[in-house]
Amino acid sequence: MLNEFFERWLPVLEAEMRAVLAGGEAATAAHYGMMHYHMGWVDATFQPVTLPAGKRLRPLLCLMACEAVGGETKQAAPAAAALEILHNFSLVHDDIEDGDEMRRHRPTVWKLWGAPQAINAGDAMFALAFAAMQRLPERGVAPETTLAALRIFTETCVALTEGQHLDMSFEQRDCVTVDEYLRMIRGKTAALIGASVAIGGLIGGATPEADESLRHFGQSIGLAFQIQDDILGIWGDPAVTGKAAGNDILRRKKSLPMLHALNDARHGAQLDALLQKPGFGAPDLPEALRLLAATGSQEYANRLMNEFYTAGLDALRFALGERARQSLLWATAEWLMQREM
Amino acid sequence: MLNEFFERWLPVLEAEMRAVLAGGEAATAAHYGMMHYHMGWVDATFQPVTLPAGKRLRPLLCLMACEAVGGETKQAAPAAAALEILHNFSLVHDDIEDGDEMRRHRPTVWKLWGAPQAINAGDAMFALAFAAMQRLPERGVAPETTLAALRIFTETCVALTEGQHLDMSFEQRDCVTVDEYLRMIRGKTAALIGASVAIGGLIGGATPEADESLRHFGQSIGLAFQIQDDILGIWGDPAVTGKAAGNDILRRKKSLPMLHALNDARHGAQLDALLQKPGFGAPDLPEALRLLAATGSQEYANRLMNEFYTAGLDALRFALGERARQSLLWATAEWLMQREM
Repeated sequence: MLNEFFERWLPVLEAEMRAVLAGGEAATAAHYGMMHYHMGWVDATFQPVTLPAGKRLRPLLCLMACEAVGGETKQAAPAAAALEILHNFSLVHDDIEDGDEMRRHRPTVWKLWGAPQAINAGDAMFALAFAAMQRLPERGVAPETTLAALRIFTETCVALTEGQHLDMSFEQRDCVTVDEYLRMIRGKTAALIGASVAIGGLIGGATPEADESLRHFGQSIGLAFQIQDDILGIWGDPAVTGKAAGNDILRRKKSLPMLHALNDARHGAQLDALLQKPGFGAPDLPEALRLLAATGSQEYANRLMNEFYTAGLDALRFALGERARQSLLWATAEWLMQREM
Repeated sequence: MLNEFFERWLPVLEAEMRAVLAGGEAATAAHYGMMHYHMGWVDATFQPVTLPAGKRLRPLLCLMACEAVGGETKQAAPAAAALEILHNFSLVHDDIEDGDEMRRHRPTVWKLWGAPQAINAGDAMFALAFAAMQRLPERGVAPETTLAALRIFTETCVALTEGQHLDMSFEQRDCVTVDEYLRMIRGKTAALIGASVAIGGLIGGATPEADESLRHFGQSIGLAFQIQDDILGIWGDPAVTGKAAGNDILRRKKSLPMLHALNDARHGAQLDALLQKPGFGAPDLPEALRLLAATGSQEYANRLMNEFYTAGLDALRFALGERARQSLLWATAEWLMQREM
């Protein structure tokens, strides 16, 4: 059922994104070429390539929400494109800010063309995401609805920067609480997933109350999805995740289980001392995992993940009533939670 | 007449910008603090300061255009705030991209808080500029008009990145033509000034034809203003400009007079060789100025500046008819062109 939807709508989404990011003028070909490279459409010499695309999770949720409330799915295509372009803008800038040199097995934009051009190409994608949203009236979406969708979209852009600000600030700090961490991922991850569902619902004609619940559904499964990522980063099977065992421990990443353990009254200081030890590395993994087990951090993270997941499904039930259980949104939430360990 | 308008509307504009950029939550105080620092409202420790503000040229042109076509000036205040916030976003990112450490006699945002946080604070200002635009319906601007204004605004954001892309690309190239240079400043400078006038006119109720002419007026005086800047950068009086004599020559800046001279068939190669000479500096200024005189580059730049200025006033006459000559827009154009050498 999900696959059918993906096969039907992914090409529509791709066409919409390509139209918005087209450029055209010879003088600025490299400017648009960098954006096309990041989107996975061309190689570093701007020749077309076929690469496995990203999950396109956010735009698909937007289209599904539109359909779920009885709207015309294709009317939401410009918004879906806008959400995916916005997500990709944030990745271009995050890669610069975090100094990440690789993304999806290729060098990042800043690594190839330098930070100045990459900042500017990201800014262009940001602007073009708004341009995509403004194609809604051409598809018969009312001006008032378009403006309401733009309001959610803009709030989300601001929330993304707040989340990223907190994430970068935490790197500089010794002590971060679990509540602070949850505030950060609400901005950095959950806001955009919530907006994707809410904007799709709005275009599809959901009542304000139903749409607020759809947004809550998206935010909640966004939080559950991020916590699952944190759990997999520590206890995931390297054969499945493609990352080294205990990868996030070795990177000293302040993810939810780590913060829970570091804030533990009995074992926190010991874990902190281990992580700060000069030469901390793979041989220290068993001891770190032992301390995480002693604090029950995996169970804690699992419980929190399941709470958000359940709250999300409840919100979906509130928004869609009887139809919730049969909707693609429900199926997607289930599918996201089934990623293997 | 101009002063009266400035005194009346600058406080309204400042209040609008402060409301949009307010933030509020303790956790993200530093995120908003960086934006307030860039705007000149606080010092590096986020304590309030009173500094001479920037010219606020773009938002004032927006308000004047609204008034000139018979609109209610205060309805345009959110758009005016959006234009000034957008301009300031672009300065935050330009400073990072150009490696500039000082702006308005203070360290730049990236210099104080690092490029990662500065990129992200700029992104927040970009998003909040759109949030400012979305306050228009609250002031009684029709949804269709708000969307039309947003379209101009978004096109302009894209044009800014195209101009900045070309500007950075030119730094890497030996040879740039005057036409390429004009294309660059159309994006980097003229587009936003044109948009400021066009958006004000649109909100004030200008017909589409009149508004197109208002936009043309703004673009043309924007081009004239930039070329004047280029002329002052070489031949301006240091006592007035606050910069060293021949400042842009010493920086080898590819401004319009320089490009005109470098593209001269008889003297271009000689000027190029001089600029590339190891140890090129102040003692070489007289020879550089002699070559610029031999190519007639100052006269050429003056002629082009005056052509754009005249075209701008013609467009204003087309838009406003009889009232053009008495309008504040005309007075502002005259005032801009009277900056001393």
